[in-house]
Order: sequence, then C-alpha cells, then structure tokens
Amino acid sequence: RSGEMAKLTQLIDNDVFRAYATYTTIVLLKMMLMSLVTAYFRITRKAFVNPEDVASFGKGESAKKYLRTDQDVERVRRGHLNDLENIVPFVGIGLMYALSGPELSTALLHFRIFTGARILHTFAYLIPLPQPGRGLSWAVAYAVTISMAYKVLKTALYL
Amino acid sequence: RSGEMAKLTQLIDNDVFRAYATYTTIVLLKMMLMSLVTAYFRITRKAFVNPEDVASFGKGESAKKYLRTDQDVERVRRGHLNDLENIVPFVGIGLMYALSGPELSTALLHFRIFTGARILHTFAYLIPLPQPGRGLSWAVAYAVTISMAYKVLKTALYL
Amino acid sequence: RSGEMAKLTQLIDNDVFRAYATYTTIVLLKMMLMSLVTAYFRITRKAFVNPEDVASFGKGESAKKYLRTDQDVERVRRGHLNDLENIVPFVGIGLMYALSGPELSTALLHFRIFTGARILHTFAYLIPLPQPGRGLSWAVAYAVTISMAYKVLKTALYL
Repeated sequence: RSGEMAKLTQLIDNDVFRAYATYTTIVLLKMMLMSLVTAYFRITRKAFVNPEDVASFGKGESAKKYLRTDQDVERVRRGHLNDLENIVPFVGIGLMYALSGPELSTALLHFRIFTGARILHTFAYLIPLPQPGRGLSWAVAYAVTISMAYKVLKTALYL
Repeated sequence: RSGEMAKLTQLIDNDVFRAYATYTTIVLLKMMLMSLVTAYFRITRKAFVNPEDVASFGKGESAKKYLRTDQDVERVRRGHLNDLENIVPFVGIGLMYALSGPELSTALLHFRIFTGARILHTFAYLIPLPQPGRGLSWAVAYAVTISMAYKVLKTALYL
Repeated sequence: RSGEMAKLTQLIDNDVFRAYATYTTIVLLKMMLMSLVTAYFRITRKAFVNPEDVASFGKGESAKKYLRTDQDVERVRRGHLNDLENIVPFVGIGLMYALSGPELSTALLHFRIFTGARILHTFAYLIPLPQPGRGLSWAVAYAVTISMAYKVLKTALYL
C-alpha cells in the first residue's frame, strides 16, 4: 500500500478507534438483524402490507386477507424503530467521542455497556420481559450516550 | 498520551471539525430529547402500546384501556421520525463536508442555521405553530444539507 | 490553507475515502428525496396528518376531510423508513470500512452495488414492480453491508 494509505489507516490502528469500529459494527449488525426478524414474522404470521407481496398467494380476495397487521410483526417493528432512535446518536456521538482522546479503558466501558444494554433491550422487547426490564436497558444505553456527549462537548466545544 | 493518540486527536483540534462535533452532538441530543417527551406524554396521557407497559395499572380490562393512541403522543413521534429523516443526512454529509476543507466561517454558518432550524422545527411541531412555520424550518435545514452535499461532491467526487 | 488543514484534508484526498464520501452523499440525497416525494403525494392526494397543515383549506369539517391516510403516501413513507433502516448501517459501517484499508477496486464495487441496489429498491417500491424485484434489491444492498462489516471486524476487531 502507498504511504498515503498508511497515514490514513493510522486511524484504524488506534485502539480507541478500533474499539469504536468494532462496537459500532456489532450494534449496527444487531439493528440490521431486526429486518430479518420482521421478515420471519411476516412470512410465518402471513401478515403483509404491500399488495405485490401477497400476489404469489393467489388472485383477489384469497390473497388480500394476508394484507393485515400482526401483533408480533408490529412489536419487532417498534423494536427496530427504537434501535434507529438510539443507535444513530451512539454512532454519531461515539465517533466524535472516539476522536476526543478518551482513556482506552473508559471508552471500552462506554462501548461495552451500550452494546450490552441494546442487546438486552432487544430481548426484553421481543420475548417480552416484564417492565422495567425494557425501560432500564433503554435508560442505561441512553445514559451512556449522554456521558459520551458530555465528554465531546467538554473537549471540542466550538459554537 | 502517546504520539499515536496525538496524531489522531489532531482531527479534534481542527476548528471546522470541532464545530462539526459540537453541532452534531447538540442536534443529536435534541433528537434524543424526543424520546423523553414521548415518555412524558405516554405517562401523563396514559397512552401505551405494549401490554407489559400497562401491567402495573392492574389486571385485564382495567389496564387494557390504556393501550391506545393519543394525539399528543403521535405528534411527538412524528416529530421524532422527521428528526431521524433529516438529522441522519446532516450527520453523514456534514462529516464529509467538515473534511472537505470549507472556510471556518462558511462551515459555522451551515452548522448554526441547520441546528437553529431543527430546534425551531421541533417547537413548531410540538406547540404547534400555524403553517408555514414548520414547513419553512424544515426547508431551511433541508437546503443547508443540500448545500453541504454540493460542496462535498464538488471537492471529493470519485465515481 | 493552514498546514493543519492540509493534514486534515489528506483524508479527503485518499481515493477510497473520496469514493466513500461520494456514494454516501448520493445515497443520503436519494433518501432525502423521499421527503419531497411524500410532500408531492400529500399535496396531490390531499392527504395530511396534522390539523395545522389543512387550515388553509378552510375551517371545520371542510378541511378535516383532508386529514386522512392515502395508499400512495403510505407507500412512499414505507420506502423512506426502509431507507433509514438500511442506509444508516451503510453510512456507519462504510466509514469504518473505508478506513480499514480496502483495495480501491473492491471498495468501489461495494459502494456502487449498494447505491445501485438502493436506487432500484426505490423504483421497485414506488412503481411498484412485482416481487421479488423489491426483495432482491433489498437483499443485495443488505449483503454488501454485511460484506463491509466482515472486513471491518477482520481488520479492526478490538473487543
């Protein structure tokens, strides 16, 4: 590889940045998994939303009955949207945080707790676990992101 | 800190990048606030969506009546989704823009107008203000993102 | 420009990073276009959701009849949400991937296939095309993101 590329990849050679890349990738893959879970429930529960998706089930009324909402499908979709609402801030604020020079151990603590809490949140939503299981796992991941945001603003504030 | 870390943090020492980090963090925190507003309205309006969330209100029919949609809750949720649709492009395109070498004053103008417009958009949605209040604040933030995208493509285009 | 800025912009001078910046910007602009398509259908179909949006159509019942859902509007909104669910992982994982030192030709292949597949997905959703048109375009873009995630974890894994 060229020297230019070597300079660029120094970023990925930094331990904090590698940890950020690892946990961001894991948590985004977890979010992507929600699409497969939605598809699984749509197919097993036969609950679709687009007419073209049920065309293979036959013509007219026999197929139309599969255009319906299903409790399990809607539950997965709410979990997916909650992921978007919470993982997007983690990815954006986490990148700035990783570049703001935190201690490696502190950064790892943030990334690991966030990732663990969001995985717990998914189980709590899909099983479902009794409250406050889901609420607490949501709040822990939320607090981790706030903590990273505080470090970013303390280090980089430029209004 | 090690020399490697010093090289890495040169990014966060750059004024344009610090401004990007600051405004991105602010606007993502504002988006996260929508989760708390949703929770506030769900609790005060007693309007929930998951059976496990109303279990503490009692058994059977007495709790089921709180599984309902509420106008105020739905309004906040629409504002939250609109944030996702508009803040995600800002964060992604804004990062490339910050790295494309814009003048500091031009970059600050973009970041400040976007952030101000999105905060106005939230107030316009939640109060709600008469149109075209919400429409205009949405359009201004949209135009800022397009302007940054134009600069990125002009500087970095590699198809 | 200052020497500090020169160091920073070395990132945007790297070909893989320029390609990432280009395709990320294109795919985020495509996602933003969904807002305009939604607005177009809301106005032409006269199907709105907020009371303040129909106030200009008159007072009371004459305006309230435009507070309704419309098949075409809902279809665009589903396409928009699907974009969020799939483009957010591409932007996040793609950034790490671009910094993980891939071959330029391999990186371009990933970025081009993802972008093409997502543009096809939008057409397949909006026209709509018969299945498995939409399903396949979704799956191709999904597989590209998984492939990038694999490269990131192979290069940068730090748990």
